[in-house]
Amino acid sequence: MKRVSTFPFTAIIGQEDMKKALILNVVNPRLGGVLIQGEKGTAKSTTVRALAELLPPRPCIVGCRFHDDPHDKSNWCDECHEKYDNAEPETELLPMRVTELPVSATEDRVVGTLDIEAAIREGKRSFEPGILADANRNILYVDEINLLDDHVVDVLLDSAAMGINTVEREGISYSHPARFSLVGTMNPEEGDIRPQLLDRFALSVYITGEKDLDKRAEVIKRRLEYEDDPEAFNAKWAEEQEKEVHRIERAIKLLPQVTVTNEILRMAAEISITLGVEGHRADITLIKTAETIAAVDGHTEVTKEDLRTAARLALPHRMRRRPFEEQKLDWENVDKVIDA
Amino acid sequence: MKRVSTFPFTAIIGQEDMKKALILNVVNPRLGGVLIQGEKGTAKSTTVRALAELLPPRPCIVGCRFHDDPHDKSNWCDECHEKYDNAEPETELLPMRVTELPVSATEDRVVGTLDIEAAIREGKRSFEPGILADANRNILYVDEINLLDDHVVDVLLDSAAMGINTVEREGISYSHPARFSLVGTMNPEEGDIRPQLLDRFALSVYITGEKDLDKRAEVIKRRLEYEDDPEAFNAKWAEEQEKEVHRIERAIKLLPQVTVTNEILRMAAEISITLGVEGHRADITLIKTAETIAAVDGHTEVTKEDLRTAARLALPHRMRRRPFEEQKLDWENVDKVIDA
Amino acid sequence: MKRVSTFPFTAIIGQEDMKKALILNVVNPRLGGVLIQGEKGTAKSTTVRALAELLPPRPCIVGCRFHDDPHDKSNWCDECHEKYDNAEPETELLPMRVTELPVSATEDRVVGTLDIEAAIREGKRSFEPGILADANRNILYVDEINLLDDHVVDVLLDSAAMGINTVEREGISYSHPARFSLVGTMNPEEGDIRPQLLDRFALSVYITGEKDLDKRAEVIKRRLEYEDDPEAFNAKWAEEQEKEVHRIERAIKLLPQVTVTNEILRMAAEISITLGVEGHRADITLIKTAETIAAVDGHTEVTKEDLRTAARLALPHRMRRRPFEEQKLDWENVDKVIDA
Amino acid sequence: MKRVSTFPFTAIIGQEDMKKALILNVVNPRLGGVLIQGEKGTAKSTTVRALAELLPPRPCIVGCRFHDDPHDKSNWCDECHEKYDNAEPETELLPMRVTELPVSATEDRVVGTLDIEAAIREGKRSFEPGILADANRNILYVDEINLLDDHVVDVLLDSAAMGINTVEREGISYSHPARFSLVGTMNPEEGDIRPQLLDRFALSVYITGEKDLDKRAEVIKRRLEYEDDPEAFNAKWAEEQEKEVHRIERAIKLLPQVTVTNEILRMAAEISITLGVEGHRADITLIKTAETIAAVDGHTEVTKEDLRTAARLALPHRMRRRPFEEQKLDWENVDKVIDA
Amino acid sequence: MKRVSTFPFTAIIGQEDMKKALILNVVNPRLGGVLIQGEKGTAKSTTVRALAELLPPRPCIVGCRFHDDPHDKSNWCDECHEKYDNAEPETELLPMRVTELPVSATEDRVVGTLDIEAAIREGKRSFEPGILADANRNILYVDEINLLDDHVVDVLLDSAAMGINTVEREGISYSHPARFSLVGTMNPEEGDIRPQLLDRFALSVYITGEKDLDKRAEVIKRRLEYEDDPEAFNAKWAEEQEKEVHRIERAIKLLPQVTVTNEILRMAAEISITLGVEGHRADITLIKTAETIAAVDGHTEVTKEDLRTAARLALPHRMRRRPFEEQKLDWENVDKVIDA
Amino acid sequence: MKRVSTFPFTAIIGQEDMKKALILNVVNPRLGGVLIQGEKGTAKSTTVRALAELLPPRPCIVGCRFHDDPHDKSNWCDECHEKYDNAEPETELLPMRVTELPVSATEDRVVGTLDIEAAIREGKRSFEPGILADANRNILYVDEINLLDDHVVDVLLDSAAMGINTVEREGISYSHPARFSLVGTMNPEEGDIRPQLLDRFALSVYITGEKDLDKRAEVIKRRLEYEDDPEAFNAKWAEEQEKEVHRIERAIKLLPQVTVTNEILRMAAEISITLGVEGHRADITLIKTAETIAAVDGHTEVTKEDLRTAARLALPHRMRRRPFEEQKLDWENVDKVIDA
Repeated sequence: MKRVSTFPFTAIIGQEDMKKALILNVVNPRLGGVLIQGEKGTAKSTTVRALAELLPPRPCIVGCRFHDDPHDKSNWCDECHEKYDNAEPETELLPMRVTELPVSATEDRVVGTLDIEAAIREGKRSFEPGILADANRNILYVDEINLLDDHVVDVLLDSAAMGINTVEREGISYSHPARFSLVGTMNPEEGDIRPQLLDRFALSVYITGEKDLDKRAEVIKRRLEYEDDPEAFNAKWAEEQEKEVHRIERAIKLLPQVTVTNEILRMAAEISITLGVEGHRADITLIKTAETIAAVDGHTEVTKEDLRTAARLALPHRMRRRPFEEQKLDWENVDKVIDA
Repeated sequence: MKRVSTFPFTAIIGQEDMKKALILNVVNPRLGGVLIQGEKGTAKSTTVRALAELLPPRPCIVGCRFHDDPHDKSNWCDECHEKYDNAEPETELLPMRVTELPVSATEDRVVGTLDIEAAIREGKRSFEPGILADANRNILYVDEINLLDDHVVDVLLDSAAMGINTVEREGISYSHPARFSLVGTMNPEEGDIRPQLLDRFALSVYITGEKDLDKRAEVIKRRLEYEDDPEAFNAKWAEEQEKEVHRIERAIKLLPQVTVTNEILRMAAEISITLGVEGHRADITLIKTAETIAAVDGHTEVTKEDLRTAARLALPHRMRRRPFEEQKLDWENVDKVIDA
Repeated sequence: MKRVSTFPFTAIIGQEDMKKALILNVVNPRLGGVLIQGEKGTAKSTTVRALAELLPPRPCIVGCRFHDDPHDKSNWCDECHEKYDNAEPETELLPMRVTELPVSATEDRVVGTLDIEAAIREGKRSFEPGILADANRNILYVDEINLLDDHVVDVLLDSAAMGINTVEREGISYSHPARFSLVGTMNPEEGDIRPQLLDRFALSVYITGEKDLDKRAEVIKRRLEYEDDPEAFNAKWAEEQEKEVHRIERAIKLLPQVTVTNEILRMAAEISITLGVEGHRADITLIKTAETIAAVDGHTEVTKEDLRTAARLALPHRMRRRPFEEQKLDWENVDKVIDA
Repeated sequence: MKRVSTFPFTAIIGQEDMKKALILNVVNPRLGGVLIQGEKGTAKSTTVRALAELLPPRPCIVGCRFHDDPHDKSNWCDECHEKYDNAEPETELLPMRVTELPVSATEDRVVGTLDIEAAIREGKRSFEPGILADANRNILYVDEINLLDDHVVDVLLDSAAMGINTVEREGISYSHPARFSLVGTMNPEEGDIRPQLLDRFALSVYITGEKDLDKRAEVIKRRLEYEDDPEAFNAKWAEEQEKEVHRIERAIKLLPQVTVTNEILRMAAEISITLGVEGHRADITLIKTAETIAAVDGHTEVTKEDLRTAARLALPHRMRRRPFEEQKLDWENVDKVIDA
Repeated sequence: MKRVSTFPFTAIIGQEDMKKALILNVVNPRLGGVLIQGEKGTAKSTTVRALAELLPPRPCIVGCRFHDDPHDKSNWCDECHEKYDNAEPETELLPMRVTELPVSATEDRVVGTLDIEAAIREGKRSFEPGILADANRNILYVDEINLLDDHVVDVLLDSAAMGINTVEREGISYSHPARFSLVGTMNPEEGDIRPQLLDRFALSVYITGEKDLDKRAEVIKRRLEYEDDPEAFNAKWAEEQEKEVHRIERAIKLLPQVTVTNEILRMAAEISITLGVEGHRADITLIKTAETIAAVDGHTEVTKEDLRTAARLALPHRMRRRPFEEQKLDWENVDKVIDA
Repeated sequence: MKRVSTFPFTAIIGQEDMKKALILNVVNPRLGGVLIQGEKGTAKSTTVRALAELLPPRPCIVGCRFHDDPHDKSNWCDECHEKYDNAEPETELLPMRVTELPVSATEDRVVGTLDIEAAIREGKRSFEPGILADANRNILYVDEINLLDDHVVDVLLDSAAMGINTVEREGISYSHPARFSLVGTMNPEEGDIRPQLLDRFALSVYITGEKDLDKRAEVIKRRLEYEDDPEAFNAKWAEEQEKEVHRIERAIKLLPQVTVTNEILRMAAEISITLGVEGHRADITLIKTAETIAAVDGHTEVTKEDLRTAARLALPHRMRRRPFEEQKLDWENVDKVIDA
């Protein structure tokens, strides 16, 4: 059973930060995911699921269970190495996907299972892929990620750190590539997220309900219209969706040409130090985000404004938690660095 | 073994909010359920079980274990797709049902079980349906829902969010449609309900014991009369029950014709903002509830009074908890918005 | 192994409330059980076990594992339906029994077990009855009920609420009638009882040790005499026991003829409201208890005194807990209502 | 493997209360056990194990796994009923034993095990007796009883209350008589004992180390002498042991002839009330203990002094815990009642 | 795999108390073990492991899995009884050993395992010995004994108390002798030891790091020298080791001839009372320790100085814990008793 | 699947202490590991993984699963003893490796598994090696070591203490050498490390992010350059890496010739005492570290400066935790000892 239709991404009103962060991750899958925090009913899940309709196709090796990239041999699975180390793999274009990890998923379902008896009987490893196999080169989406079981968080962290998922049972092991963009949503009122997991996200956004009455009435209207006849509604928004897909495809092509000056690099470092952000991962993400913003906006040199926008997306979850007032001061300090 | 007779819904004295909320969910199953809170002995369970006698028949595909709707192909189970994607399904009228989920139910009993050995032996998935299969297109009733095991709550939440129940065991999985109206009862003195679960309910009512002496004596009399000879009592109330069934059937027919003005939509949005209700889900439920109230009352344009009634049912559990005094203020503010 | 002899019920000195509450439940099994609270060594268990000797015979279907009532078809088990829906069941008179649920009993022992392999092999459900099967139409006695395992309490509550015990294992289920009078004893110093369970009891009594020196010396003397030669002691008390059995049988015959005036009904409702008792279950129990008291006392119209006595037995565990002083005030208020 | 020799009971210096309480339980097994509390190293275990050497022989049914009493048919096991209900059982004299329940014993080891497969295969119940089977009609000794696993305490309480041990597994059950004198030792500094278990003990003693230097040096000397050559030491004390055995045997014969006046009965009741002891079990134990003391001392009418001694052994663990000073007052009050 | 070489006992600098306590236990295995407390890095483990090289040979029954003593028939295992009750056992000299119980050892590994299937198939008990079998008549060494799993502590306590290890599985049981000297090390900063376990130790020492600079430099030098070439280092210390072995052998021969006066016995008792040590076990251990000290020092009558030294080793862990200052006072009081 | 490329060790900017500590452990594997503490994003893992590229080859026995050292017979596995005790083993040069222990690893995966059935069937022990087998004579790396499961910590400690890994299952056991350099990383904000584990580390370093803007911009630049084209980046740094390998090889050859004066030994002892470091292990590690520093720096007599550097690496985690200010005082005291 597959969900048949989803609310169109472009028909979602407001929530610009969330939408931008998601698009950036589609354009640059190596960016590293996004954490969406917000109160109940702010269309977090709807938006992520809607994203699925905009995902561009990419070349994949035909028949590979992990949809390996034919051009990235260093991340091929064992099966592809075996078949194609000395041969040219057949290639097909498959769209990127949103793979969903339900909160109630067991560790087995996440990592996949090894058939030990088959292994003994037939002398070869028989692996049943799990969610992490699906997630390779895709977006891995976890709703209410702060409620995830600790064991599942552990395997997520291991995979996210290594880009590899290893299953081990009774002395037999199997590994496959598992490089994904992690997208999580959570309502901070319902519990914290473990700091190591938080640290895995490149970007984070915090969203609230729309406050404008007309926009809000429009939200209700569109939703009721959609629930009444999803297919008709989707048809109406098809053109808008098409445009967004083109914008994404243009950005993907532009991204490798984007450059960054030394001045911008130093600025990124200074922002991190000024804000007391730990370690160096923040600076690197800041620059990569700014580069992707440039590509989406259609220019090839990272500007100060790109960096400013990137800071709003890449830094909030890396700052020590403070009262709201002081955080505002933080952004003023960021601006001082950029505008200095 | 099936319970043979139940106390008639129409013979229940008072508790008008509870009875209205239940009827609204029967008329509009997509509304989203109702949470009934109240102290011990206020006939919560009796009323829900009594509701079963009023449920209208709907077209179902003959032989389908999930009683799929022949006209809603996008929510068919895999078996129906297989059989009828290229054929016309045979149809029968079956009454909507109240499926009960006991607090002591195991996760297996709720989601159903996969026969792995059969799967291996015969190469096909053999699924034994659970409570969620029964609940598809029906009312799922959980007494003392606040005492439910956390694992069962997790699968309820997953099913409620997706409209699909997925069972997964040793790498084999099975999915089927599971769209239900969730009806829960609870005594708030015996423990809280998890916020995510609370959020799944469209409506909520809080009920207390009858305070009028004559009515109360009548409650005792009717109950003793019923316990003494259930069949005679039910016969006496048959006509009253029949009338209620007709009222429900009329409302079901009227509902698709109900319309709502932009002014009402804006009002709904303003109410949500005024009350500080989180997200947009509240507004949408408010409008859908008002539409259903209009249908039950027999008119086709949503009125301010429909909205006012809807607010009393759809908002209480979405407001931040406050002392009783301030809540009263809330309702005054709702009225100010409506009567402005 | 069965315990061979028990101390005679009629030889127990004092503890009149406990003895009355137990007798009322024997006369009217649909009353709903009694909770006996008291300090250590107050003969709680001895009295309940002694009750077993006074239980009257009732018609049962021959060979039925749940001793179904031939005249109550709506509560027959599946086997009886299968055999006798189109035939007259053979009937025998069997005495009501006290079925004991030990605190260390496992859930399996309480609900019974399903033989899954037999089910698969022979294609039919093979059910091994548990304590709840024994308890159907009998008294279910739980000593130290406040120490019962939570899982066992859950199944007790489910059975008590539905009158049905359902066993479920690997997708196969079996149900049978399980309607019982629940009798529990507990020492409140050793832990509380869950409120849902407390709520299942119709009556409650609180007992303390005898304070009169002569009576107390008599208690010792009788006990030592009994322990020395149980059979001789029982023979000596046989006539007294016989008399009590007759009194119970007379009451059972009288009960269906007992009537209750509207004034008494209103009084019951007013008592509940005055005492702030939750819900309506209290009023109903109050009236049913008063009716049974009338039958035991040999008259057929419920008097104010019957109601007063009933209030002392049916209400204490339904009132919000207060200091002893205020409780006394409660009883004064009850009397005011009755004597108004 | 059996322990070969033990330190002789009569060679133990001091600790008169503990030794008296143990002897009383041997003379009158229906008394109900003794709890020995005391600090580390006060020879608690040594004394109980030493008691084993003094235990008198009693008639038992030959071949019975529970060593049933040929003269107490109402407590025979099922096997004896089957064999001897219509025949005269063969009888042998076997000494009473001390059965030890180690703190690390599993529930299975305590209650025994049912061989389910044998039951299915051969259609008969195959029961492997556990510690409770050994304990029937013997002394059941638990060292550090306050550290016992809760599950084991539960089965102990069930057996102690009913005199029957019931094993239940997968719908098959087996019961056998399990009437034992419970002897427990504990160091109160290492944790409390559950009140229900405490209540099962008839007598309790609290012991401390010897304070007299010469006696204490003698304790060391005897112990070293024993450790050096256990057999020689035991030979030296054989005569003393023999004498004690005779004293016990005389008391057993005398016990049935002991009588108690109404004045003594009333005194027992008054002592219980004066001390605020809960329930009636205390009075009864007081009288039974006084009767046994009379038998051991060689007279046949219970005296005030017997009652005074009995109070010191039977009441301390039944009084609400108070500071030491007030307890002293308690004993003065006891004496006032007796000497009034 | 066996560790090939260990640092020589005699090359360990300082830590005289620890070394003395260990030697005393080798000379007199019935003394009852030693607990070594100290901060990290004070060579606790090294010293115990080094002790293994000094252990003297003792006569054992050839082929016995528990190396039974041919001269101590009362502690033979069942197999030896079976073979040699009517025959002379063959004897061999085997050195005492240090058996190590790792903190991560499971209960199975400690007590050994029963092969149930073999028992059923072949009708005889098939026992796989565990660590406690190895430990019989040897030193049982537990590093970080305060971190031991509670279940393992329970079986240790049972064995230590009875001198017997009993394994029980599904109604089949096996017992064998398990009398060992328990040697434990612990760092008190990492957690307490259970009082019952503490009580099992005869002696205790508390050690700290060396404070003398030259000695400390020598410690480093010897250690580096040993690590560089263990075999050469051991060869260098061989003579010193040999001497120590002879001293131990002499003491073993002398021990049975050691006598103790009544004055010394009374002194031991008085010391215990003065220090408020609980029970009598302390006095007995005090005397046994003093006897062994005499034997090691080569004289045959226990002196006051032997008693003084014994008090330092046998009493510290038996005194109620107090601040350091008061403990010093304790030793002054001990000296007063001895020098009185 | 193996990670194909890593960021070059020599391209890592700053973090000199961490890099030095790692190199010292490569040069002298018997030193005992290093614990790297630091905030998030400080390239801890990257650096350890990068170390793998610098590891020198060592002679190993061909075909040995534990890559035994042909010249260290006392640490051979059983298989090598069996094969080569009377024969010359074939030898090959294999590079030292970094074996990674993921936080989610099970105990089985760490210690390896015993195939019991094979053992029974074929009468020989069949062992599947785990991570500890891989780790023998290599570096064992644990990221986030403070989050490791307690059971896994236990087996790590046992192996680290004994140099042997013992697997035990159902009475069968298997041991193999497991001597490794333990390298752990942790973020102290995410939880403490158990003191016993902390104590196993020879060295510890605490690292923070780079504060210099230019260096920090360079960190970003190098990282982005590497991510863009890992192979090109590695080629560019190949020469630098080669030089570092040579420096390590020179140090390994020099190490056996390094000597240490008595003055330095006494200084080490005095430093330990001055700082209140527990036990003697600190002194020994101090000297071994200083020796290795000398070898890396290319001289053969340990200087005061070597000792000073060694103190900074070997002592911080052995000092009682104090406020930062007092720690600074500690280093001044160390300097006073050295410069005295």
